[in-house]
Amino acid sequence: MENVKQEFGEDLIAKIRIQSPLIHCITNYVTANDVANMILAIGASPVMADGEKEVEDIASICSALVINMGTLKEAAIPAMIKAGKRAASIGRPVVFDPVGAGASAFRTESGRRIMEEVPCSLIRGNVSEIKALSLAPGQEKGRTKGVDASGKDRISDENLEEHIQFAKTFARTHRVTVLMTGTIDVVTDGNKTFLIRNGTPLMKRITGAGCMLDGLSASFLAVAEKENYPEAAALAAAAEGYCGELAEKKVTEEKSGTGSFRMHLIDAVSGLDDNQLKEGLNIEIR
Amino acid sequence: MENVKQEFGEDLIAKIRIQSPLIHCITNYVTANDVANMILAIGASPVMADGEKEVEDIASICSALVINMGTLKEAAIPAMIKAGKRAASIGRPVVFDPVGAGASAFRTESGRRIMEEVPCSLIRGNVSEIKALSLAPGQEKGRTKGVDASGKDRISDENLEEHIQFAKTFARTHRVTVLMTGTIDVVTDGNKTFLIRNGTPLMKRITGAGCMLDGLSASFLAVAEKENYPEAAALAAAAEGYCGELAEKKVTEEKSGTGSFRMHLIDAVSGLDDNQLKEGLNIEIR
Amino acid sequence: MENVKQEFGEDLIAKIRIQSPLIHCITNYVTANDVANMILAIGASPVMADGEKEVEDIASICSALVINMGTLKEAAIPAMIKAGKRAASIGRPVVFDPVGAGASAFRTESGRRIMEEVPCSLIRGNVSEIKALSLAPGQEKGRTKGVDASGKDRISDENLEEHIQFAKTFARTHRVTVLMTGTIDVVTDGNKTFLIRNGTPLMKRITGAGCMLDGLSASFLAVAEKENYPEAAALAAAAEGYCGELAEKKVTEEKSGTGSFRMHLIDAVSGLDDNQLKEGLNIEIR
Repeated sequence: MENVKQEFGEDLIAKIRIQSPLIHCITNYVTANDVANMILAIGASPVMADGEKEVEDIASICSALVINMGTLKEAAIPAMIKAGKRAASIGRPVVFDPVGAGASAFRTESGRRIMEEVPCSLIRGNVSEIKALSLAPGQEKGRTKGVDASGKDRISDENLEEHIQFAKTFARTHRVTVLMTGTIDVVTDGNKTFLIRNGTPLMKRITGAGCMLDGLSASFLAVAEKENYPEAAALAAAAEGYCGELAEKKVTEEKSGTGSFRMHLIDAVSGLDDNQLKEGLNIEIR
Repeated sequence: MENVKQEFGEDLIAKIRIQSPLIHCITNYVTANDVANMILAIGASPVMADGEKEVEDIASICSALVINMGTLKEAAIPAMIKAGKRAASIGRPVVFDPVGAGASAFRTESGRRIMEEVPCSLIRGNVSEIKALSLAPGQEKGRTKGVDASGKDRISDENLEEHIQFAKTFARTHRVTVLMTGTIDVVTDGNKTFLIRNGTPLMKRITGAGCMLDGLSASFLAVAEKENYPEAAALAAAAEGYCGELAEKKVTEEKSGTGSFRMHLIDAVSGLDDNQLKEGLNIEIR
Repeated sequence: MENVKQEFGEDLIAKIRIQSPLIHCITNYVTANDVANMILAIGASPVMADGEKEVEDIASICSALVINMGTLKEAAIPAMIKAGKRAASIGRPVVFDPVGAGASAFRTESGRRIMEEVPCSLIRGNVSEIKALSLAPGQEKGRTKGVDASGKDRISDENLEEHIQFAKTFARTHRVTVLMTGTIDVVTDGNKTFLIRNGTPLMKRITGAGCMLDGLSASFLAVAEKENYPEAAALAAAAEGYCGELAEKKVTEEKSGTGSFRMHLIDAVSGLDDNQLKEGLNIEIR
């Protein structure tokens, strides 16, 4: 683990807290509040704006953009694409979360369209969602169960190599960094690969853990060099996972539950610093 | 009470936690996060999707559907109706919450239209809302005060019989199970009737108690037999009410407040099991 | 301070809790839940409704209206204007929050249009937002950083007199009461001026402190006489700020974080009474 901690030498959290980068989020109404609070907890500054008439203005002043397809409506897609193109054109990282791709033809097609038109820096999704983006039209039927990874798509030690290979191929094909979340998170740009084993099953018992990770990832990418986006995404995933572990400890001590877990998760992120994260992270470099 | 506990013999919470039914919610942006977290707390899996282009796809893979009229906009109604028809056509329970019916002509008319076009399994609302659905057009003026039951519509021991009669007639007329919430909750399909006396006044000091009950009810109905929908709805109402009582105890001990109450409510649901519910429920069979 | 406490002699919180005024909110999907819970915490009754087809009906039965421009979309503007005109026409206070004015041309123009067409009682925003509303078109470029006040617009003891002068001129020009929030909050109708020094920097580490203050202000204005709107707005700002101080104390004791802070803030408001507020308020009359 020692060399991992050297690898992740840069103190990104300190940089976030000093620079307070503006994170433009086009996201869903279910978890928007959690996403904004998570971005604030890590020290960045959220601006939630999805009106087609203003997204280019907002994207122009931001340090990173999140596009999240949860509760997607047709009218929102042009705004997502406009914002994405603008942010990318001025060198800002774009994080795209294809929520529910595979669960409906509309989401799958919209996800592919956004990925095609917007030069994304990071795709964040579960295995089912990312597979839905990569399959030829017609192949994806019945792969996704709602917005969670379907059973056969759960990442485990047994199918890990296969999933890593898939993610690497996807990353190379689409020239993007992938953060594929599951029991083990896989981050790869097709070249560098990281496996993150932080986290707790409680993350799946609250809504928005994935969406909050979009916001965290964007905050980390906003202060990282472009060639270090994979490391930044891996650190974001480790940060949320590790804070989930801390929150779970509190829940166990208190004998509380999932409502408390959500609060402790945000508490832990709001108090996290780089040293604590380096102690807590569980990242394997491949 | 003993025979009530026998009546409610099936362990629905265990079934929810094993099957993790997918609950499709078309709901409002005010409480969507709470609803999703409540569904996760009881062990089901929420998918919040209201885009007209995808609701039929999503409804097709779900175990139950919630249609909630909070923050209603005209454009949402076709999506609600499409989803409702699809879910009903494949035998999935549809829970309809006519939030604010009676507060505006638009809500009242929309509520009636949805009820007319969608074969609902359960209507969940306060007395004012359900009365607004049942009155002839023009009669409802000024009955509802916003989204809460107006004074004359509060269920109490004095007017209980009248309210039961009303709910039974409504249920028979519309061939639906009714969960009419108030100080005393009334569940009836016109034949079997249950009165639930769980709950605390603190429920009305947070937003979303009703919407969360929509999600809980859908989770219970998703794993129940069709002929037992009234029992399942009664159990859902008792579950939320009883967990409210547990949460209130914590708030009193801590001397905290309504923010904590909301969290403890979700905590209690996330830890609830069938035995605990059977001990805590306060249901009278009529 | 003694004469301030006499000045603020009327027990507005008690009045809110007795009358439970209905507060109609047209607000954004990011913080709508927090706003509703804050309104409930102080004892009023929220109704969140933004459908163009019903806002006039809803505004007609309400005691106050909040119009908040967060996550603004073009289609929402006619609903905001209709509701605002209706509420004002029947003598109800209208609180307008020009969230993000200055951050995009669309928001700035929309904010001005709403202010022009709706007879607002109270404008609540940070310095950057209120300046954006007051500048001639074209002047505002780059003033606002997202939805937070930009650096040069932070209110401090150094630039306080200048900010007071600006707010007074704005209030007189637009015949409105202004609640301009920052490290020190300024309330003025151009005649009476109040400075509020309650609050904590933690308020800026959660989303929605401003939006929640819109809801609180509307609740206070709903039970105040028209000539006392400045006092009512000052009390609302002091109430939120003071409850923030109480919440911060808890966070420090617990060594928790921003997730807990949000909960404790709502807890404190839900338990607040007029005597406690009079002890805690830090208001200077100018």
